[in-house]
Amino acid sequence: MLFVVIMPNYCEAGMRVSLGQFNAVVGDLAGNAARMREMYSRAVSEGSDLLIFPELAICGYPPGDLLCKKHFISDGEKILNELASGCTDLTMIVGFAQNYQGDNYNSAAVVQSGRVLTVYRKRLLADYGVFDERRYFRPGDEPVVVNVDGFNLLLTIGRDIRDKQWLAKQFDSNKEIDLVVNISASWFDIRKSGPRHKVLDECAKKLNCGVCYCNLVGGQDELVFDGRSAFVDTAGTISASAKAFEEDFLTADIARADGTITIKPANPVSKQPAGLTDEIYRALVLGVRDYTRKNGFERVLVGISGGIDSSVVAAIAVDAMGKANVTGVSMPTQFNSPETIADAEKVAGNLGIRFLTIPIDAIVGQYDKALAKVAGWDNKQTAFENLQARVRGCILMSLSNQFGSIVLASGNKSETAVGYCTLYGDTAGGFSVIKDVLKTMVYELAEYINAGSENQIIPASVIERSPSAELRAGQKDTDALPDYELLDKILKGYVEENKSPRELVEAGLPDDIVLQIVKMVDKNEYKRRQSPPGVRISTGAFGQDRRFPITNRYSHYINGHAE
Amino acid sequence: MLFVVIMPNYCEAGMRVSLGQFNAVVGDLAGNAARMREMYSRAVSEGSDLLIFPELAICGYPPGDLLCKKHFISDGEKILNELASGCTDLTMIVGFAQNYQGDNYNSAAVVQSGRVLTVYRKRLLADYGVFDERRYFRPGDEPVVVNVDGFNLLLTIGRDIRDKQWLAKQFDSNKEIDLVVNISASWFDIRKSGPRHKVLDECAKKLNCGVCYCNLVGGQDELVFDGRSAFVDTAGTISASAKAFEEDFLTADIARADGTITIKPANPVSKQPAGLTDEIYRALVLGVRDYTRKNGFERVLVGISGGIDSSVVAAIAVDAMGKANVTGVSMPTQFNSPETIADAEKVAGNLGIRFLTIPIDAIVGQYDKALAKVAGWDNKQTAFENLQARVRGCILMSLSNQFGSIVLASGNKSETAVGYCTLYGDTAGGFSVIKDVLKTMVYELAEYINAGSENQIIPASVIERSPSAELRAGQKDTDALPDYELLDKILKGYVEENKSPRELVEAGLPDDIVLQIVKMVDKNEYKRRQSPPGVRISTGAFGQDRRFPITNRYSHYINGHAE
Repeated sequence: MLFVVIMPNYCEAGMRVSLGQFNAVVGDLAGNAARMREMYSRAVSEGSDLLIFPELAICGYPPGDLLCKKHFISDGEKILNELASGCTDLTMIVGFAQNYQGDNYNSAAVVQSGRVLTVYRKRLLADYGVFDERRYFRPGDEPVVVNVDGFNLLLTIGRDIRDKQWLAKQFDSNKEIDLVVNISASWFDIRKSGPRHKVLDECAKKLNCGVCYCNLVGGQDELVFDGRSAFVDTAGTISASAKAFEEDFLTADIARADGTITIKPANPVSKQPAGLTDEIYRALVLGVRDYTRKNGFERVLVGISGGIDSSVVAAIAVDAMGKANVTGVSMPTQFNSPETIADAEKVAGNLGIRFLTIPIDAIVGQYDKALAKVAGWDNKQTAFENLQARVRGCILMSLSNQFGSIVLASGNKSETAVGYCTLYGDTAGGFSVIKDVLKTMVYELAEYINAGSENQIIPASVIERSPSAELRAGQKDTDALPDYELLDKILKGYVEENKSPRELVEAGLPDDIVLQIVKMVDKNEYKRRQSPPGVRISTGAFGQDRRFPITNRYSHYINGHAE
Repeated sequence: MLFVVIMPNYCEAGMRVSLGQFNAVVGDLAGNAARMREMYSRAVSEGSDLLIFPELAICGYPPGDLLCKKHFISDGEKILNELASGCTDLTMIVGFAQNYQGDNYNSAAVVQSGRVLTVYRKRLLADYGVFDERRYFRPGDEPVVVNVDGFNLLLTIGRDIRDKQWLAKQFDSNKEIDLVVNISASWFDIRKSGPRHKVLDECAKKLNCGVCYCNLVGGQDELVFDGRSAFVDTAGTISASAKAFEEDFLTADIARADGTITIKPANPVSKQPAGLTDEIYRALVLGVRDYTRKNGFERVLVGISGGIDSSVVAAIAVDAMGKANVTGVSMPTQFNSPETIADAEKVAGNLGIRFLTIPIDAIVGQYDKALAKVAGWDNKQTAFENLQARVRGCILMSLSNQFGSIVLASGNKSETAVGYCTLYGDTAGGFSVIKDVLKTMVYELAEYINAGSENQIIPASVIERSPSAELRAGQKDTDALPDYELLDKILKGYVEENKSPRELVEAGLPDDIVLQIVKMVDKNEYKRRQSPPGVRISTGAFGQDRRFPITNRYSHYINGHAE
């Protein structure tokens, strides 16, 4: 059955449409509704006829297993109805979780004249990567076309707009459709920002319609939704695009004459990110800010070693929280060179943050004394190196517990992947800022941070010194790992693209090193399983949706592949 | 299209069927095939006509994102074909992951005369709880009926056997079906063992057929598959049941006369668990043994405090690994009473394990000295309590790193739920044995352990003393928490049954305490996210499939519910 609410399609028509790209908080039903009410008032004062909000705007995205609670769904529906009752001056489209005839749906409410006029239910549920929509929702099966001020709008949610066949079928059976509305919760991904707009463009051109696309913005645990809502005209041109990584309210005037849709932005065009590194940096800043603030923290702690990872994390923290809310902690031992100790202080000084130095040799020594009574303990081996990292983790957590700050961990994706880190040591913290950033990209971020400031925030010596954990005399990362250029190439292929060792070797990567790294990645799943959440920027992130078993003997077969 | 391989259905027939209930290791394709070959030889020597293995027997269950690797699927298919080539003396049914026309399926191969004769593809994919089958597989849509020695077998995998309508349809359209074969990977759950056999009974009775049910056994990360494969006759009676929590090879003679199926077990009937506590205990033992051994560890470390949780964990560890492979470590401070310190030693002595005492006051004191230099540090507050727990975690991890043992954490589900634990402190470890066991059940396990041994393993004083973390003078768990009887009732409702606070209050639980506990559960999601894996025994476990957001303001609405 086709559910259609159509009014006569006038030859010429015009309306003003606003996209309410707001930063929803998962579970904050009333708070999200309050923010939508503010945007409603603005839309009314600007004379908009239609106001569109993102996917699941009422409950935030992704609500996860909250959707398994019946009362969570019914509370959201109650909040939606309250919101609808105040909406008397224009039409709104609002994403919400709906219980319909006993099943849950990812839905879009069309709100008019103080009530919910009709509801569209998402057809193509996402069930890959971070998405588990089939765990929570049934797919809808009825198209919804609504008429607003003489325009006929076909509603879609998220991936629905990718189903070209289905879209074409709707346009075939209803020649009067002018616009496709797409409400979305699409997260930032280093490989996604281009193709996403391409889908909108193709839809508009192919179907000779306009597209109104409203995306979510904000950080939610590991995901950062990047906004960039947009209007696309029938030529497939982005007529107006909302800000990236910020809330925005984007308005455009849409007109139809002689069967052609024209779109004129009412706001000046906002500046878009300058490139991939800029995008990544802004994603990280927003991710840190929203994770900390949405969880009730105002202040953060960063262990600063004088190395590049913690320097970059400290700079991101300052941008996210303000320098008054960031404390850097240096925890040197006998193995830290005077140069790195000095660099740690320099970075903190350049950033203008509070800086504490807590030497840890005496604590480590006390552990060593206690452990020396156990036969076989040897303070020249890895256990002793890890111990130093754990003492640092313990100090940061003690400060966190005492002062109510959240600890930001500084491990990068390259070392996290191969387990070149200490569980409960340098992995300790509430949020792991660059856990999805490969080491080679950390260097690019350092250059980006320096290029964006007048003084050099991160000293050249930090960037140029060869990386070391400094847990024993003369240690270098390259003692245990290949150089990061090569390591990152292997990780990109194996972790982010799920390629087999054999494919990597066939692509020209050295056999023995591929083998070594792949084994390390597999073996260290247990460490990653206990690591804090952090900003996801890739499709192969070590997040909650990485569902590899820990107990896994498949790596035993590497020889069969790579050789 | 109906895919059917049917031979004439003789009036009378008989065959011998074996169920190969084996402990598969995820990813160990060749190892699993080798174990199946051993069972094949045994089946041949016992004169079996048909040998049935569990769901996804080739790759183990659940393989998770390994299924996203193309080479993982193709390697498994290669191994299946090798296994098939040696199968010339009987028919085998083998679960495997199949790539068919570009899509992946959860499949059952029928192997005869050295080759794969036909393949059934699972219809009803599981997509709830721990299952993500739709993430990896497409559902099949063709029934498969095969004839083996005059019997017509309808193949099903896992949940397929729950679809009564579909089953009835197959029997309607094919009057010749004698037996339903179900290959499964069904994990132990305190609420599941009954209903599961009920499904088999109902199927047999309703359709007037026999059922051959082969389930997986063994621990795989958090899951413990409990075996208990079975033959069910047309009366719906379990004719023979394989062992629980152990590998088993179960053979029966199946005969058909006058349209009735009779099943006669060839082995003596194996002893089944004595009750729920027995089942839980055995699940925990198998979970610990398989997690450690399958991950290459032979020895474990347990921090022993003299409290009930660590005593129970130590006893389980001894049962799982043998006493020679378990080391207990006592790490007392000034806040531990002489009684608990003595009890720790007593428990270790009763179990006959190696026992180390490493006092930690000097280490804690050294931290305190270093932290005292930070303005605002106060060694009378929670941060200082947590510090002691973290020093213990750090010592256990140092011993683990030095000696290659795995640390077993002792936190129970009640304290994990409300966050009454220290991240990187008592939560530290490779495997968290009782993380899904509520405190009231820990007491039952203690009594069970004592009842099963000649001497009292866990002293009465340990069971009777009121629980305390002993992190400050005179501390009791009840300072911060309601008594465990009440706490566990709230947790059962809120965590395991997803009930709303209002429902709990309406069921008679005290308003203010429900509110307090629910807030604590929600707020501490971040701690659980970083906790080690542990044996799952309930449907509401804090495992990888618990997909609640950390950033979650929904708890703010508790007032709206409970009041």
